[in-house]
Amino acid sequence: MDKDTNKQIRYWGWGQTNHEYDRDKTYRFLKTLTEHFGLSALPEKLQHAKLEAFKVPKSLLPQNFITKWKSKGLSLDSYERLLHAAGKSYRDVVRVRNNQIPRFPDGVLFLEQSDHIKDLYTDAIQHGITIIPFGGGSGVVGGTECIGPNEKPVLVVDLTLLRRLLSIDSKAMTAQFEAGIYGPKLEQALNAKGYTLGHFPQSFEFSTLGGWIATRSAGQNSTLYGKIEDMVQSLTIHTPQGILETNHVPASATGPSLKQLLIGSEGIYGMITEATVKISPLPQTQNFVTMFFKSYEQGIDCIREIMQAGLKPSIVRLSDPDETNLYLQLMLTSALKKTIVPYWFKWKKLGKNPCFALIATEGNRPFTNFQREKIRALVRQNRGVFVEKSFDQKWKKDRFELPYLRDDLLDHGFFIDTLETAAPWSCLMNIYESMKFAFLKHKKDNLLIACHLSHAYKDGASLYFTFIGRQRKGHEIEQWEKIKNIASDIIIEHGGTISHHHGIGYDHKKWLSKEESPLGIDILKAVKKELDPENILNPGKVF
Amino acid sequence: MDKDTNKQIRYWGWGQTNHEYDRDKTYRFLKTLTEHFGLSALPEKLQHAKLEAFKVPKSLLPQNFITKWKSKGLSLDSYERLLHAAGKSYRDVVRVRNNQIPRFPDGVLFLEQSDHIKDLYTDAIQHGITIIPFGGGSGVVGGTECIGPNEKPVLVVDLTLLRRLLSIDSKAMTAQFEAGIYGPKLEQALNAKGYTLGHFPQSFEFSTLGGWIATRSAGQNSTLYGKIEDMVQSLTIHTPQGILETNHVPASATGPSLKQLLIGSEGIYGMITEATVKISPLPQTQNFVTMFFKSYEQGIDCIREIMQAGLKPSIVRLSDPDETNLYLQLMLTSALKKTIVPYWFKWKKLGKNPCFALIATEGNRPFTNFQREKIRALVRQNRGVFVEKSFDQKWKKDRFELPYLRDDLLDHGFFIDTLETAAPWSCLMNIYESMKFAFLKHKKDNLLIACHLSHAYKDGASLYFTFIGRQRKGHEIEQWEKIKNIASDIIIEHGGTISHHHGIGYDHKKWLSKEESPLGIDILKAVKKELDPENILNPGKVF
Repeated sequence: MDKDTNKQIRYWGWGQTNHEYDRDKTYRFLKTLTEHFGLSALPEKLQHAKLEAFKVPKSLLPQNFITKWKSKGLSLDSYERLLHAAGKSYRDVVRVRNNQIPRFPDGVLFLEQSDHIKDLYTDAIQHGITIIPFGGGSGVVGGTECIGPNEKPVLVVDLTLLRRLLSIDSKAMTAQFEAGIYGPKLEQALNAKGYTLGHFPQSFEFSTLGGWIATRSAGQNSTLYGKIEDMVQSLTIHTPQGILETNHVPASATGPSLKQLLIGSEGIYGMITEATVKISPLPQTQNFVTMFFKSYEQGIDCIREIMQAGLKPSIVRLSDPDETNLYLQLMLTSALKKTIVPYWFKWKKLGKNPCFALIATEGNRPFTNFQREKIRALVRQNRGVFVEKSFDQKWKKDRFELPYLRDDLLDHGFFIDTLETAAPWSCLMNIYESMKFAFLKHKKDNLLIACHLSHAYKDGASLYFTFIGRQRKGHEIEQWEKIKNIASDIIIEHGGTISHHHGIGYDHKKWLSKEESPLGIDILKAVKKELDPENILNPGKVF
Repeated sequence: MDKDTNKQIRYWGWGQTNHEYDRDKTYRFLKTLTEHFGLSALPEKLQHAKLEAFKVPKSLLPQNFITKWKSKGLSLDSYERLLHAAGKSYRDVVRVRNNQIPRFPDGVLFLEQSDHIKDLYTDAIQHGITIIPFGGGSGVVGGTECIGPNEKPVLVVDLTLLRRLLSIDSKAMTAQFEAGIYGPKLEQALNAKGYTLGHFPQSFEFSTLGGWIATRSAGQNSTLYGKIEDMVQSLTIHTPQGILETNHVPASATGPSLKQLLIGSEGIYGMITEATVKISPLPQTQNFVTMFFKSYEQGIDCIREIMQAGLKPSIVRLSDPDETNLYLQLMLTSALKKTIVPYWFKWKKLGKNPCFALIATEGNRPFTNFQREKIRALVRQNRGVFVEKSFDQKWKKDRFELPYLRDDLLDHGFFIDTLETAAPWSCLMNIYESMKFAFLKHKKDNLLIACHLSHAYKDGASLYFTFIGRQRKGHEIEQWEKIKNIASDIIIEHGGTISHHHGIGYDHKKWLSKEESPLGIDILKAVKKELDPENILNPGKVF
């Protein structure tokens, strides 16, 4: 149960229990995969572990701690302990489905007031309790994994009850929130006053402001509104050594940026309890341009030119040929796919591997119109072919829905994982081609690798990869690790960052130490020692 | 002598010896001040200390250190030691003019290769030498002050020989430079390839890329191009514990930002030797709009609306009534001032306290035209009155020149200092009015306080104050300290940052600890201890 929305949450997958992805599209997509992997029929539906099957062990929390904190939001409920045992990565979900959770938290504290944190830290140190801060729990890099010294009880601190809008400064266009607020509630509160934050990650419905900040999140509209680190004017963090509130100013030259040291701190330095964010007027209008390019490289060049011309689209998204194909399979009926579409591609001279792109602009009308016109001109210059067939509506409808489809794939034994990076424009095609090439050798998995470009900057962009295959029964995690290792090594070797917006958590630790110099890691450790000398917060995460 | 340009530099003031500010304008300005302060005539010209007067003591550097480093750029020359003894703040310049330099460096090392740094640190630790990293030396907050334990020799390390353009990535639009390169050389190198960095602080001619990064500098065009922390894609710093190069990616979610911890580190963590910066195409066109507003508040509201409409001027600058008046005195001939201008103000119903504003737009033609049109519409809506009389040319001519005028004021015994802040839009008028009000009580100084707004953001802007008075002979530094204390306290008390772009150095230490929580300072100290455990770099600076 989500304490905030009172809606039942899938412990075995994404989102709400009483919601599912569009059935027709699911059917079409599964059919496509069935054909791709040469299966005679759709594999039969697997059963995930039932609630009763989980053996949630007796809590290791000491009795006097339990007695004291029961009245302040502590729950020892097995269901809550299961729900807070993992995030929502492929690895997380597979382990839950297969009843392979390595460790359950010994309790979940639904923190009611940030005032309680100081006392909580004191008790945690006294009793040797490990603390895992928890926002929406939608992370996909093992950030909420219950690791830590085996002998120590693990307490997950759920921050979603800290969810108030504290103030809006309409002159400075900033809003101060408690950080546990979920995306929809935050937007509702702002929309009611005519504003938006403009931060819409795919996890939007199930992630929190504090979670976004702790992981350096990016939303789908980040190309206009910025990543979360650009949106935060200031934040408050409760560390075991005290509270730190950064200065509430638009910019400063007051030495190193403490704010940027705490954004992305993933619960290792403290719990983010409040943040003041820069807000924008609700856009008067939003305009989508959808198009096809003959090749991925042509599309990438076009988006680069748009960014380097000083234009400010809100969303850019360019699918490679494989993703485009999958997307068409998902979106179009069989009749369309077989008849009109191939002819249209031929007629438009888009070749055999057309790439679908979507570019949105939003804001006040003159700004949006100017952007759209200039963007359309650059698309034409780069020989993009516009398509007006309501692809934008399709995309909008699906923007937060696709993770539900993953559950359907898992139900039928398909492997599906995603990972992402960012790199300078000059490195993107190299990363992309190296990734495709590397997996050619792994014929056993015969993976479908789809990729899209999103989150563009003047100096580079993010690439987002989706890997789809057949699960190796009984070796699911091993299979995942192997694929993850190959893909992550390629990213680092070719000049990408190990994450543009998912974070480090537990899963990316190994590559963080390849991306940053050992001295960089030493700095992060020195700060950890200063703020959390007893190492009670998220031990073993990030570095 | 500037080793880079081979031009003679004023040890007793700003810039080059063989250059001075426009004589007519200087005369007009001094005349205005003479009248303002009720003097019967322009005070006679004071003499600054002659070179021969300085008693530069024997170097404390150990002989074997000298022997080893002489062939690698070490200079014990008295002139160089004088030139590197201070920055260019009012306090710095007055102390040089009055022959009151508290301490000279024991040597100046013109570092020839960054490869030498490791060896240098080893020797510094072995011999107990304090190191002061030095870029252009144009800082105004005591950042290059030769403080440190009295018994230890002080070595200034001048980084301006590290000045190569290393590479340009025209696809990613980034350029990698050695960090000691001066502003003009950096722009020349980029302009030759059709690019600009777009970073033009007033110190542009005498400051370096590394200095900009170390102090979180902002240029006059920062409203479009960003502050230096927005321009740096990655940097390399040599710390006593080793070299750290941050990742070369447009954005990432790899934990806390090490880059943003090192930008603004002001030589306390290491020496910045290289940086990759985001560059832009040279603007096709630059357009200036100049105007007057009836009140400062009206002008501020207009600029706020421009920023919050999503527009991107490159320069915004709005003078308060006192600065406007001083500016007109400086720019206009007596005839104009006495005849046409007052009638024009009356005719245009601008009242008795009009405020001058300049807004520039630049980039490609469509972008610039769109910006200009929308900005002009907002100016009209806010009842701004355009003035087309070549004020933009006047401003452009003076943009790097005004510090020369300071020398003329000092020559005649005038006090002149500047300080700056940034704050949310909702705090700006309060800071401004409190500053004006606070100094009303200090009748003895009868200060002229001028102010302009510049560097605007969606959530706030920077305010830049100029204080002009009569020097208290024999108590110049005491007088400066008193004024600095009052002004800085007001900024902090009213929600401003102690610096938007000058930095902390030595002069702002006291206020940094008021702006940041003690825990924040502890974090900065923990990083210092990690990177420079022997505290050889800039001891006593920043915190």
